[in-house]
Amino acid sequence: MGRKLVHTPEGVRDIYGDEMERKMEVERLLGERIHSYGYRDIQTPTFEFFDVFSKDVGTTPSKELYKFFDKEGNTLVLRPDFTPSIARCAAKYFMDDDVPIRFCYKGNTFTNTSDLQGKLKETTQMGAELIGDNSVYADAEMIAMTIESLYHAGLNDFQISIGNAEYFKGVCAQAGLDEETELELRGFISGKNYFGAEDLLINRDVKEKDREALLKTGDLFGSVEALDEALGLVNNERSKAAVLRLKSVYEALCHYGVEKYVSFDLTMLSKYNYYTGVIFKGYTYDVGDAIVRGGRYDTLLSSFGKNAPAIGFMIEVDGLLLAMERQGIVNEYAKKRTKIHYNDNNYPDKLKEARMLRADGQSVELLPEMNGR
Amino acid sequence: MGRKLVHTPEGVRDIYGDEMERKMEVERLLGERIHSYGYRDIQTPTFEFFDVFSKDVGTTPSKELYKFFDKEGNTLVLRPDFTPSIARCAAKYFMDDDVPIRFCYKGNTFTNTSDLQGKLKETTQMGAELIGDNSVYADAEMIAMTIESLYHAGLNDFQISIGNAEYFKGVCAQAGLDEETELELRGFISGKNYFGAEDLLINRDVKEKDREALLKTGDLFGSVEALDEALGLVNNERSKAAVLRLKSVYEALCHYGVEKYVSFDLTMLSKYNYYTGVIFKGYTYDVGDAIVRGGRYDTLLSSFGKNAPAIGFMIEVDGLLLAMERQGIVNEYAKKRTKIHYNDNNYPDKLKEARMLRADGQSVELLPEMNGR
Repeated sequence: MGRKLVHTPEGVRDIYGDEMERKMEVERLLGERIHSYGYRDIQTPTFEFFDVFSKDVGTTPSKELYKFFDKEGNTLVLRPDFTPSIARCAAKYFMDDDVPIRFCYKGNTFTNTSDLQGKLKETTQMGAELIGDNSVYADAEMIAMTIESLYHAGLNDFQISIGNAEYFKGVCAQAGLDEETELELRGFISGKNYFGAEDLLINRDVKEKDREALLKTGDLFGSVEALDEALGLVNNERSKAAVLRLKSVYEALCHYGVEKYVSFDLTMLSKYNYYTGVIFKGYTYDVGDAIVRGGRYDTLLSSFGKNAPAIGFMIEVDGLLLAMERQGIVNEYAKKRTKIHYNDNNYPDKLKEARMLRADGQSVELLPEMNGR
Repeated sequence: MGRKLVHTPEGVRDIYGDEMERKMEVERLLGERIHSYGYRDIQTPTFEFFDVFSKDVGTTPSKELYKFFDKEGNTLVLRPDFTPSIARCAAKYFMDDDVPIRFCYKGNTFTNTSDLQGKLKETTQMGAELIGDNSVYADAEMIAMTIESLYHAGLNDFQISIGNAEYFKGVCAQAGLDEETELELRGFISGKNYFGAEDLLINRDVKEKDREALLKTGDLFGSVEALDEALGLVNNERSKAAVLRLKSVYEALCHYGVEKYVSFDLTMLSKYNYYTGVIFKGYTYDVGDAIVRGGRYDTLLSSFGKNAPAIGFMIEVDGLLLAMERQGIVNEYAKKRTKIHYNDNNYPDKLKEARMLRADGQSVELLPEMNGR
């Protein structure tokens, strides 16, 4: 007992005081913007059956899941992210609906990473999912809402980088790569290791023209002009359609007036296998990792028995807060906090005073008088 | 895969739609009232080291804890309640503070009960803790705040039943009962089994006068007059002090004007061993279990190395929501929800319209036109 007990396990933490107030306020602002788009809140259990997050559904490697057993011997898992749970709900409660469904969620997620990585194991995620709409307008809404939410929360300087998982898949198919080679190549390209990528492609006897197209994908990022360059580089329908989709999304984003926050990156790959089309990540300065991840996952719901396209995004609230703190962004929200001191004699009067201020919306702390006050 | 996957484990559930909105609104209202008393939000990890919730600290039996291991082999536990975690934080971050500390928390808690009991295994708790103040005024603030929070959330018809763990302990000490007999007796009395209690006391050769005092505790509940009756029944200082404390608390509660919500019950016992003085429970009709539990725990913090008195309460949000639903209480909160339909031709105009309404604080869902609409 004693001192040892006051520590939390590695990778999880307590939040209180001003930091906690900042967190609550940022979550409130994000929620306010997401709700304004008609998204409605949903809560799913903190733990689910292992199958919901299994490899087939494709989110987090099994060894990074917190697993335990219920009294019946079933394997349960602390959720590593929300999307599979939301997809499960859409299938369970809206199986026969054909109108789009809009969900908003907020809660903690858990990844059992190694302590050596120094990453948080419990993080707060807030996000939205739009189910049953495969249009360009849905893609644009999701990206515009991400931008407006971050801006509304107080962040000014950030970029949403947009890619399309289909582009690279099209180029790989054109070059006749098998799945294994494709995976290996993704590893090299996302690690910016182009020599490794070239060696691999030469070893697999990939034609020079296809090799060039594959290696050039690594350069395809930047403003909307990169899309035209990408279009000139390929002559397979799948990759072309992927680029044209992004051009249409860009056009819709211009109607929202958020185009200055947007850039494109056709090399973007996600660790989540369930993404199928448009994918995007949000970055700001002073933090290395993406603070937003999102994308289209048109096949995930069929794992739960409902055939419906879907797109969603997730904001890493802890990362966003860290960035805002480092960038010196302070929201003006603090309620007036009053302290009233009382003693045994004046308690009824001081209580009355406190009650009046509280009824007026103020935060009033009653404290016993001590020596020297 | 498929259908099986859509189910959640026994005892946990999804919440969405109107139910979820009711939940968010009730939590907002409870928080608003608690914050008005100067309590500040705190978040602790969803899981902690086993020791934080061990038998010594005294909350939930080990077999009802969800346990698992981290990569280093430490036993981790999903929190069964918040109080030990908050006590740990007070010791960790405010070790040398001698002014009262006020915390407010909200989050989910986990008890691994048997499926046969049909109870929820994941429930939302919201509560407050006041640390470092052992006064009658602190007791009264906690109880008054509970009452005002429930009322503010929309509940009208409820009772807070107040006891004092010290009263019964004093009577037992007076009768010379050993700990084991005391525990057994508590079981009989809280189960209203007075024949069992009487048999036990006769078997243990308890004097008739003490027996009578012990058995009569079972009748000591009702309005403030029950306190005078209780006072006449005992002649040990510990029990007398316990009753006098409750009389002072009642007096302070009258200053808050909440006395009509209050009754007393000197037989009240808590399953949490850490309660030391005033304890209370909140009941309303249409749900069997208490929707509020609270009390003083003046020795718990010393388990974490800080000697400080404390008192807290916890609202079972799910129970409160169920009661409100059954009682037909509906909060007026629903935001105006608008749907705007668009097609490929009028998308820019319809989007503009939606954006204007959203900027105006409305919730607007954009939906593609379908046949027949």
